[in-house]
Amino acid sequence: MSEPERIRLTYHLTCAHREDAAQRAREIALEQTVELPEGAFPLELEEQVVGRLESIAPVDEGRWKVVISHQPGGAGEDLPQLLNLLFGNISLQTGIRLVDVALPESVLARLPGPRFGIPGLRKLTARHDGRPLLCVAIKPVGFSAGQLAELCGRFAAAGIDVVKDDHGLTNQGSAPFAERLRRCQEAVNEANARSGGSTIYAPNLTSPVDVLGERLELARRHGCRAVLLSPFLIGLDAVRWVAECFELAVLSHPALTGVYFYPFHGIAPDVLLGTLFRVAGSDGVIYPNAGGRFPFTRRTCEVINSRLRSDLGRMRPSMPMPGGGVEIELIPEWVEAYGADTMFLVGASLYRQRDPAAAARRLVETVRRLSPAAAPG
Amino acid sequence: MSEPERIRLTYHLTCAHREDAAQRAREIALEQTVELPEGAFPLELEEQVVGRLESIAPVDEGRWKVVISHQPGGAGEDLPQLLNLLFGNISLQTGIRLVDVALPESVLARLPGPRFGIPGLRKLTARHDGRPLLCVAIKPVGFSAGQLAELCGRFAAAGIDVVKDDHGLTNQGSAPFAERLRRCQEAVNEANARSGGSTIYAPNLTSPVDVLGERLELARRHGCRAVLLSPFLIGLDAVRWVAECFELAVLSHPALTGVYFYPFHGIAPDVLLGTLFRVAGSDGVIYPNAGGRFPFTRRTCEVINSRLRSDLGRMRPSMPMPGGGVEIELIPEWVEAYGADTMFLVGASLYRQRDPAAAARRLVETVRRLSPAAAPG
Repeated sequence: MSEPERIRLTYHLTCAHREDAAQRAREIALEQTVELPEGAFPLELEEQVVGRLESIAPVDEGRWKVVISHQPGGAGEDLPQLLNLLFGNISLQTGIRLVDVALPESVLARLPGPRFGIPGLRKLTARHDGRPLLCVAIKPVGFSAGQLAELCGRFAAAGIDVVKDDHGLTNQGSAPFAERLRRCQEAVNEANARSGGSTIYAPNLTSPVDVLGERLELARRHGCRAVLLSPFLIGLDAVRWVAECFELAVLSHPALTGVYFYPFHGIAPDVLLGTLFRVAGSDGVIYPNAGGRFPFTRRTCEVINSRLRSDLGRMRPSMPMPGGGVEIELIPEWVEAYGADTMFLVGASLYRQRDPAAAARRLVETVRRLSPAAAPG
Repeated sequence: MSEPERIRLTYHLTCAHREDAAQRAREIALEQTVELPEGAFPLELEEQVVGRLESIAPVDEGRWKVVISHQPGGAGEDLPQLLNLLFGNISLQTGIRLVDVALPESVLARLPGPRFGIPGLRKLTARHDGRPLLCVAIKPVGFSAGQLAELCGRFAAAGIDVVKDDHGLTNQGSAPFAERLRRCQEAVNEANARSGGSTIYAPNLTSPVDVLGERLELARRHGCRAVLLSPFLIGLDAVRWVAECFELAVLSHPALTGVYFYPFHGIAPDVLLGTLFRVAGSDGVIYPNAGGRFPFTRRTCEVINSRLRSDLGRMRPSMPMPGGGVEIELIPEWVEAYGADTMFLVGASLYRQRDPAAAARRLVETVRRLSPAAAPG
């Protein structure tokens, strides 16, 4: 009988010698499964449950790459437990960095992946021309629902593809959720009706666990086609739930994930924001672009893009959404670097202008003059 | 009109000079609220929404302590948004460590805090004698429901106060959730009936978001009095929901939190596992004890204990649950260090014995011979 395919996890370990790395890998394999020391569990669980050290190789001075594999069945069947297997207890140790996750078909088949993905987002926004998409966040927190709706209408009229809530907008008294949702969606509908455009509005649905379902229903009832979620504020499994059960595209925000990205301990940004956000069901993934006010390098961003777009079972590709300080003048260069299957999230660099909507309109025109992608979605 | 009390957040910033620290504090105050640069938002929001720099003082060479305060209303009304305000976007930067969170009455009043807390857990386990409590995890993953239930029965018979699932037990084929829950609770009931004891069983409820509610109902139906949750696998707000809506004590596990604990960036362990886990509603908080297989110092553990037990509005104190490699021989010393209002979580050091249940019984006897707390709960 051939063995079913296994979950393969690659870690970089900070260790002086190969033997230390082998020993640490063994400790990780035990910690993340039986959580018992050598000899304190029945032998048959060694094969069925304990992670298996597949390989060990040097990375550079004092760092080793180890591959640990797990049986999909023994490891758990849901996304919270998958996170736990990948990095739960070992997050509390040091010198362990998860740099690759390869999931077998049997695990991928249980995860929804993006319901819309890049082709679906192009369809929703009628952006079939293969050119990059543009997203603007409405802000700041403290504005009334009316003020935010007015911004929505102006950005939609300017031809922005996706107008989303700032991720800090929840249910503040200044702009209560239900009122904001209704007025913003109406403003976008009206602008679309006037312009013939297909802008979509994505309200921030990051909510208390017992309110999330009703807010999702409300979003659907008001005709929203997409929502914003911050998976690490409410649990990555919320993305999976929306992707599986609601006809709404999910744009995922990286709030609270930054602590994972330390170079010698944590989870590589491309694995967390690329692979994990995508398999959970994110149609678009926001990340802090290089050159902005967060310290991601261009190389990191490119690897995230690649994880979001490359082949992965039968899963649709997710849309990379670089943001966090993207200067509008530089967008043509970023398109050149990242390719046209990218949605640029602009905020501060528009709001700094005297007339943000006019600046948005100029940006839309600039992007429409760019060459389309080689193979439009 | 007097100003309402504000949320006060203390950060340590890694900066060379006072002016740099002041500049960074201002950037944090903007990033975590309006998410816009200086001058790109209406002036009246400065007072209503933007965080206010309250103080700045040196910590040590190259580190500065800053206090930033926020109006409770402008900042959001729910726990996910509170996390976002505290560390959402700035998690993606570097050299920022959240070291204290002071919440005003108006915010504390909206959070449940522990439903049971230390006094409630003492009541549930009939451990009124003021002595420390003992908790054992049943494991490993891979055991059948029958095997796990047998362990439950033996540890209950030995007089262990709380028998909990290992946090990696979810709904694996080897021991499906519903069967495990039923058989483990039955085994504990039978042992209690024979011994006259009051052991409680805490199943691991860390679940997909759309399954959590039914598993909670099932736990209640089978007579469980407590559950185990890993807040960072499913979102801290799940703890709040259980504390608010279910008659079940919550034991919180630190899986996936370790990346926050870097010394120069993140959230101090006592703030995350002490203050935040407690205000969310954790009745007991598991943390990796000093001297075990995780790198917490004794000082860190003592500060966590203090955050869990000290006065905090009208909130009940939470039970510290040091675990992660507590050696049974050393428990009397740890009781001396931490005080009797502590529940020691033992695992590996029992399972290494030839007869774990007999070792548990000896441990129970040892602990019962210790002096009770000065003021029993």
